[in-house]
Amino acid sequence: MIATIAPDARVLSLGDGVPPQDVRSGALRLARALPFTPPGVHLAIVDPGVGGPRRAVALRCAAAPRVLVGPDNGLLLAAAERFGGVGAAVDVSASEWRLRPVSATFHGRDVFAPVAARLALGEPLEAAGSPLDPGTLVRLPKLRPRRDGAALVVHVAEVDGFGNVALDAVRGDLPRRDGDALALTTADAAATATLARTFGDVAPGALLLFEDSGGALALAVNGGSAAATLRLRGGDTIRLEVG
Amino acid sequence: MIATIAPDARVLSLGDGVPPQDVRSGALRLARALPFTPPGVHLAIVDPGVGGPRRAVALRCAAAPRVLVGPDNGLLLAAAERFGGVGAAVDVSASEWRLRPVSATFHGRDVFAPVAARLALGEPLEAAGSPLDPGTLVRLPKLRPRRDGAALVVHVAEVDGFGNVALDAVRGDLPRRDGDALALTTADAAATATLARTFGDVAPGALLLFEDSGGALALAVNGGSAAATLRLRGGDTIRLEVG
Amino acid sequence: MIATIAPDARVLSLGDGVPPQDVRSGALRLARALPFTPPGVHLAIVDPGVGGPRRAVALRCAAAPRVLVGPDNGLLLAAAERFGGVGAAVDVSASEWRLRPVSATFHGRDVFAPVAARLALGEPLEAAGSPLDPGTLVRLPKLRPRRDGAALVVHVAEVDGFGNVALDAVRGDLPRRDGDALALTTADAAATATLARTFGDVAPGALLLFEDSGGALALAVNGGSAAATLRLRGGDTIRLEVG
Repeated sequence: MIATIAPDARVLSLGDGVPPQDVRSGALRLARALPFTPPGVHLAIVDPGVGGPRRAVALRCAAAPRVLVGPDNGLLLAAAERFGGVGAAVDVSASEWRLRPVSATFHGRDVFAPVAARLALGEPLEAAGSPLDPGTLVRLPKLRPRRDGAALVVHVAEVDGFGNVALDAVRGDLPRRDGDALALTTADAAATATLARTFGDVAPGALLLFEDSGGALALAVNGGSAAATLRLRGGDTIRLEVG
Repeated sequence: MIATIAPDARVLSLGDGVPPQDVRSGALRLARALPFTPPGVHLAIVDPGVGGPRRAVALRCAAAPRVLVGPDNGLLLAAAERFGGVGAAVDVSASEWRLRPVSATFHGRDVFAPVAARLALGEPLEAAGSPLDPGTLVRLPKLRPRRDGAALVVHVAEVDGFGNVALDAVRGDLPRRDGDALALTTADAAATATLARTFGDVAPGALLLFEDSGGALALAVNGGSAAATLRLRGGDTIRLEVG
Repeated sequence: MIATIAPDARVLSLGDGVPPQDVRSGALRLARALPFTPPGVHLAIVDPGVGGPRRAVALRCAAAPRVLVGPDNGLLLAAAERFGGVGAAVDVSASEWRLRPVSATFHGRDVFAPVAARLALGEPLEAAGSPLDPGTLVRLPKLRPRRDGAALVVHVAEVDGFGNVALDAVRGDLPRRDGDALALTTADAAATATLARTFGDVAPGALLLFEDSGGALALAVNGGSAAATLRLRGGDTIRLEVG
């Protein structure tokens, strides 16, 4: 659709490996990637609510020439915050640019791509739909690590395409040293992870806790997938015994 | 190969997620996608018969400036029908444009991509190979839903990259209402699916029957893969108890 | 990163389906693919040692205008050998072009992509880092098939995206005819494979031994994945009973 409407637009694909329907992982992936990409129109779709009452939206960032297009389910807001927050927003659910009829399940083709393509051609955000109050945009519940006795209770912020699991904590939240082993429990698994700097600091197949490339505390398996091993996805809770 | 032969050609990738060797799913994917893409040379390869006697072909559509290149196994014909059928066809198995020697197993590199690239440069279809009678092109057997007592027997027309399963039936074939639950059986599974409009109309993990974005009746799991859950691929038979 | 630094560079993606962390499969994939691509800067990353002491390197091939960028773990050298070997090499671990701070785990973003992008802009290899002696580059241990009584002991040279398994032997190493069945054993599986020319020469689901498109003896399953069936990855040993 984009190539049809905006044949000269360059399209970059960034989203490989976001777990299906994992809005939280998609939101953090987008927020982490965009500061390294050229400015432009950024289309993101992780949309378990397609065809339901959720709005389709387009947002202009307040502090950079970047426009975000996608479902109004929290997917776009962490990225917008990297660029000064939302400067203006429109509801594009009934955009004049959409395909008609709009299918119930493929808004990527019928709504989001046509809107993103027209914006990439330089048409104004205001022409994409009807204005909306940015304060009404749906936000993902904030996750925060918390102490519970000898444990630190953390949450999964992002699962990446290798199965590495970013948490809602930072390295400084763990009063422990590299090389220390920490017991952890999830809803249906228990394991031990070693605090380390990089994958090769632990044995193949072993679990590590490390500071990832976005600055988050993260779980990985050297040569494997922590998300598959521990059956984790965005929003899940993990209990780390930090002593 | 395309970038080497036709460095200025824009290449769009459409095929992610077609199940390996599933010619029927590939054929329907192609037919559904092309009406939304710019016209051009469309290269498609799902080719379990590579290295055997099947022909390699290039087809010009009768009613649109679109050329299709791929194996002569039925993969291309549903797409051609969207553009008026096949206007002209050539056998490119021994095309002068092919790499030599041609390997037994990688005709994508050795035959199809070189032929598609030269056609993208504007060379005529007739120069790609030897003429063939479009009536001799291999067609996939037509699947048709049929009544069997209280059941509607349908077939898998396409499995997409999310594991959603399009059937060879339309919503109107089911004399039932949204919200109704239907028992279904496959060769090695039994389940119940709810008639619905979109994924979110059923519980996470539940199976639904809905009208998909191509107008077909389709099976999906909210937040999962119907193809994996029911072990389905193109051409498989499903029995729906419609009462 | 590449689009940000070198917005006019054309980026081709070749690596889909290299098994995670399988340096040997990645090395052969790269070596097989590059002779068919346009010359340029070739960025390759399979990097289990990221964040450890392994060097990041950029190499100029001796006999073609091709530059290779990636980790110094053997990934690049088979490809360089296709173009006359390494003409010049630099250590880019502390390249002036890298992002700072460099993360411990995402050198693709922080080191390799910025270096490849600047080289794609035409900047000289010598400006990318400090010179190094090509003789010090890390090489993968050479695998060689060997006879052991009635068996030929071979190794996995590459697993491709379909699960086809290229071996370190050629068709001529097997003193047997197409149609013959050979027993084989791996570290944890036993099976029988039929010598054949292409996939369709054996039944669906059957294992075949064939000469692949790169000229290697290879294992495949018609309509399936030999790597998954036999649990194989680069460097694994297979015993073929050749009589």
